[in-house]
Amino acid sequence: MSDKKPKKPQKLRARLPRGLVDRTPSEIAATRAMVETIRAVYERYGFEPVETPAMEYTDALGKFLPDQDRPNEGVFSFQDDDEQWISLRYDLTAPLARYVAENFDTLPKPYRSYRNGYVYRNEKPGPGRFRQFMQFDADTVGSASPAADAEMCMMAADTMEALGIPRGSYVVKVNNRKVLDGVMESIGLGGDENAGRRLTVLRAIDKLDKFPVDEIKKLLGSGRWDGGEEGKGDFTKGAGLDSEQTEKIVVFALLQSGNVTELQDVTNLSSEKRSTVGKVLTFSSDDGDKSYFVESNKGVIDGMMTHFGSTQTAKDGIEELRQIATLAESSGYTRDRIRIDPSVVRGLEYYTGPVYEVELLLETKDEKGRPVRFGSVGGGGRYDGLVSRFRGEPVPATGFSIGVSRLQAALDYIHRDAPKKIDFGPVVVLVMDRNEIAQYQKFVTTLRNAGIRAEMYLGNPKNNLGVQFKYADRRNSPCVVIQGESERNNPRGEPVVVIKDMILGAEIATATSDRDAHLQKQMEAQVAVKESELVEGVRKVLARHNVSWQ
Amino acid sequence: MSDKKPKKPQKLRARLPRGLVDRTPSEIAATRAMVETIRAVYERYGFEPVETPAMEYTDALGKFLPDQDRPNEGVFSFQDDDEQWISLRYDLTAPLARYVAENFDTLPKPYRSYRNGYVYRNEKPGPGRFRQFMQFDADTVGSASPAADAEMCMMAADTMEALGIPRGSYVVKVNNRKVLDGVMESIGLGGDENAGRRLTVLRAIDKLDKFPVDEIKKLLGSGRWDGGEEGKGDFTKGAGLDSEQTEKIVVFALLQSGNVTELQDVTNLSSEKRSTVGKVLTFSSDDGDKSYFVESNKGVIDGMMTHFGSTQTAKDGIEELRQIATLAESSGYTRDRIRIDPSVVRGLEYYTGPVYEVELLLETKDEKGRPVRFGSVGGGGRYDGLVSRFRGEPVPATGFSIGVSRLQAALDYIHRDAPKKIDFGPVVVLVMDRNEIAQYQKFVTTLRNAGIRAEMYLGNPKNNLGVQFKYADRRNSPCVVIQGESERNNPRGEPVVVIKDMILGAEIATATSDRDAHLQKQMEAQVAVKESELVEGVRKVLARHNVSWQ
Repeated sequence: MSDKKPKKPQKLRARLPRGLVDRTPSEIAATRAMVETIRAVYERYGFEPVETPAMEYTDALGKFLPDQDRPNEGVFSFQDDDEQWISLRYDLTAPLARYVAENFDTLPKPYRSYRNGYVYRNEKPGPGRFRQFMQFDADTVGSASPAADAEMCMMAADTMEALGIPRGSYVVKVNNRKVLDGVMESIGLGGDENAGRRLTVLRAIDKLDKFPVDEIKKLLGSGRWDGGEEGKGDFTKGAGLDSEQTEKIVVFALLQSGNVTELQDVTNLSSEKRSTVGKVLTFSSDDGDKSYFVESNKGVIDGMMTHFGSTQTAKDGIEELRQIATLAESSGYTRDRIRIDPSVVRGLEYYTGPVYEVELLLETKDEKGRPVRFGSVGGGGRYDGLVSRFRGEPVPATGFSIGVSRLQAALDYIHRDAPKKIDFGPVVVLVMDRNEIAQYQKFVTTLRNAGIRAEMYLGNPKNNLGVQFKYADRRNSPCVVIQGESERNNPRGEPVVVIKDMILGAEIATATSDRDAHLQKQMEAQVAVKESELVEGVRKVLARHNVSWQ
Repeated sequence: MSDKKPKKPQKLRARLPRGLVDRTPSEIAATRAMVETIRAVYERYGFEPVETPAMEYTDALGKFLPDQDRPNEGVFSFQDDDEQWISLRYDLTAPLARYVAENFDTLPKPYRSYRNGYVYRNEKPGPGRFRQFMQFDADTVGSASPAADAEMCMMAADTMEALGIPRGSYVVKVNNRKVLDGVMESIGLGGDENAGRRLTVLRAIDKLDKFPVDEIKKLLGSGRWDGGEEGKGDFTKGAGLDSEQTEKIVVFALLQSGNVTELQDVTNLSSEKRSTVGKVLTFSSDDGDKSYFVESNKGVIDGMMTHFGSTQTAKDGIEELRQIATLAESSGYTRDRIRIDPSVVRGLEYYTGPVYEVELLLETKDEKGRPVRFGSVGGGGRYDGLVSRFRGEPVPATGFSIGVSRLQAALDYIHRDAPKKIDFGPVVVLVMDRNEIAQYQKFVTTLRNAGIRAEMYLGNPKNNLGVQFKYADRRNSPCVVIQGESERNNPRGEPVVVIKDMILGAEIATATSDRDAHLQKQMEAQVAVKESELVEGVRKVLARHNVSWQ
């Protein structure tokens, strides 16, 4: 005899790959409502829908993702049977560029379109970081005008308000890559040969939200150990700037953050300078110190021009920002909504001009209970090179993308104290007698034909009423319909059905002090009606509790 | 000197991988409307939404696709960085099984849910065969009752009618895999060792729609050359049945098709037999010939019992069909809508009981102009084994899936002669003077704030009015707004804008015979209004042409 036990067949384990989630009814309903709201705003702006599939040839998508410490550089890819590589889209912009290039001659120009859909990133999953998430994009291809960028910013602001985020709780921040390019030139980081270092600088600046300034300086200089001291944790290579270069970049990047030493309070200034409430920004330049109110877009732009306008590239960029601010303000989008802000960078490589970011100013708590800002829920910018790759001619373009899933989380947080709407399930017709299910099914059909959500209990028909009631309870059913032997063969006349109000029933179970009210409820909670009055009887219960299925 | 020319940099080619398509505004709008209609029906039936991501672990999805002559057996797969294989979902049923298994203890049971989304198949692309397409599914997990299957069939019928497909133009056909299993047993193809041959038989039957009976017989027998004769074209290996076995399978499969010799016209029968208009089906059995009206579900079921009810498996299956027919008919879903039909097979391997298919009876033309039926636009069935794989205990389940893209094509065809609704684009504010774009942008914002779709012309501002008009025309704009120097500095009073009605303008261009009417139109086609009356003026044009953006 062998000692070996027969091998138990391995049971398959039901689990999702990391970084992916299933979505519940309330999440699905919320997203649907949100998408419809965004769609209405975008269409009001004259954008029309277009959709591309989830996969593209890898070379058509290009490689623009910031996170390159992963195989496949952040994308999911596979080889087709003709050996060509195909990737899942990592955003909605790269596929749009392919679409426009492929259909260039038949599209109206400028071509204004929007779309929403899932995108996929082959990233290390982490808290709040998913490998599949939804974006909602709008793009104007074929317009070099800063008016196209200004429009994206205004639309972003309108979208936030349409979604119920009050003015003052969000801001659209605008910067221009050309300013940064100019600053890079001015510290000797211009030219193709420095592209790698420029990218490192860019990513360091982009981390300003997450790290204190000293850590950013490490990333700009010799590098940073994420354990806090040398040899601890992972090491991120720095951009290798000297201290003067580093200082210039940091000042540039920090202009808008509240704790920069260059900012001084206006309360001590003469009254004429205090016409705008807020702070002033002092720039040191060769001509001496100059102060600007940072509470106006004009102030910031003037300051940028003084401090960073030494190259033609930067000057062009700052002038574009001035145009965007002017257009926005003349249409009523003042600095509380659209704010010129030199700290905005955006992680994606393909931007070439104005970049913008929508930030929620609401505070929430992080996992340790500390207050944190919600931060960015969308952004975009000008990507003049993306369509050109296919066309061999310049095709200017600008676009804006909302992170639907992230914004969803923010909206949930905003409405966390609002009374929850009860999501009622269907009316359930119970199975008292398994030989009568054709009759029960008929009741269900009658209710459905009257537009009422209904179903027959489809669990094991041998289950007793207790189990069936529990099911109706789990489904949040407003009422159940019951017909047993005595109701069917009603000795007092034609067959009846009993309608049991589940909500009143639950109230009675938790007892009331008033005996009359209690009795009244008990009478209403369970009524017998003629079969022919089933719909009317159920409608009475639905009306009693304001049941409406959106 | 070298003869070599400098290499021209290779321009990237903009193209989609084979089998994928981009979607236009009208297709997107049509799908959205369709999905909303289906959703309303499914919710009326008491199903609630749930969504799973586009990827799953490959082993969790399982391998159930019919088309196995491709690498990866019809799915797109890639390896995660922990070496596990991940696949894009090829349908919405397998991921649901994973979801239910993973959340089994917290879900109400039976668990009734619906979802729509794209699925992906790594197939040879062909006409009407795509590698990404949309499905809309509903499933009841945890119910072994044929009432759950009957409900799916009724819901399928209701969905077709809600989508505007008239009664009589669709039919839900129902069969049971157990009957086929029983027939297989009776011809000696039972047991695990014959699983491969059973699958070959199944796929041969499934081709009845496409091939004549003689070709099916080849697939059941020694095999088939698709060039029509030996050695011509590709060879498909047959199931290796002898002629008696083949005959039994063919009779079984052909019961419902119109040209079977076993069918005889009832017009020659005695009057009492002609109570149902239609045909009778004669079965040859050991007891002699018996005739059944095939125009009644009962007739077909009785016939199946006589002819194929020799095994317990088949008997069980036929009894389930009887229950489904009874439930459907007692709720008013008669044979013109839900039809017991032994020819239905369904390609997917995982079905274990009742299977159903929604067929459109409308005729269209094939590429050679011959009339063909639209055929199947959805289907489903019972898959009792799919959730069990994870649970190690029986979990009965049944589901129904609509091929959204296919059904869309059918609906387009049905409505091909309906007058097309004009899809109006936005009101376009033209750029007459590039220094005034802040002013033009303000007009646009005023219109948008009034809920009117509007945009400023964002093409090159140097473009002349002709180019700008052409753009508005391409966008189907109802009107354009113009303000030049003379309107802005209006010598006769406050600044005005000119509103040009593009639709009337086009009518004038094609000329009218009535001179007065012509003049009248000309006057209306271009009006000057005060800046403050811009919204009112534009609304007048929109009302004139019934412009409504859905």
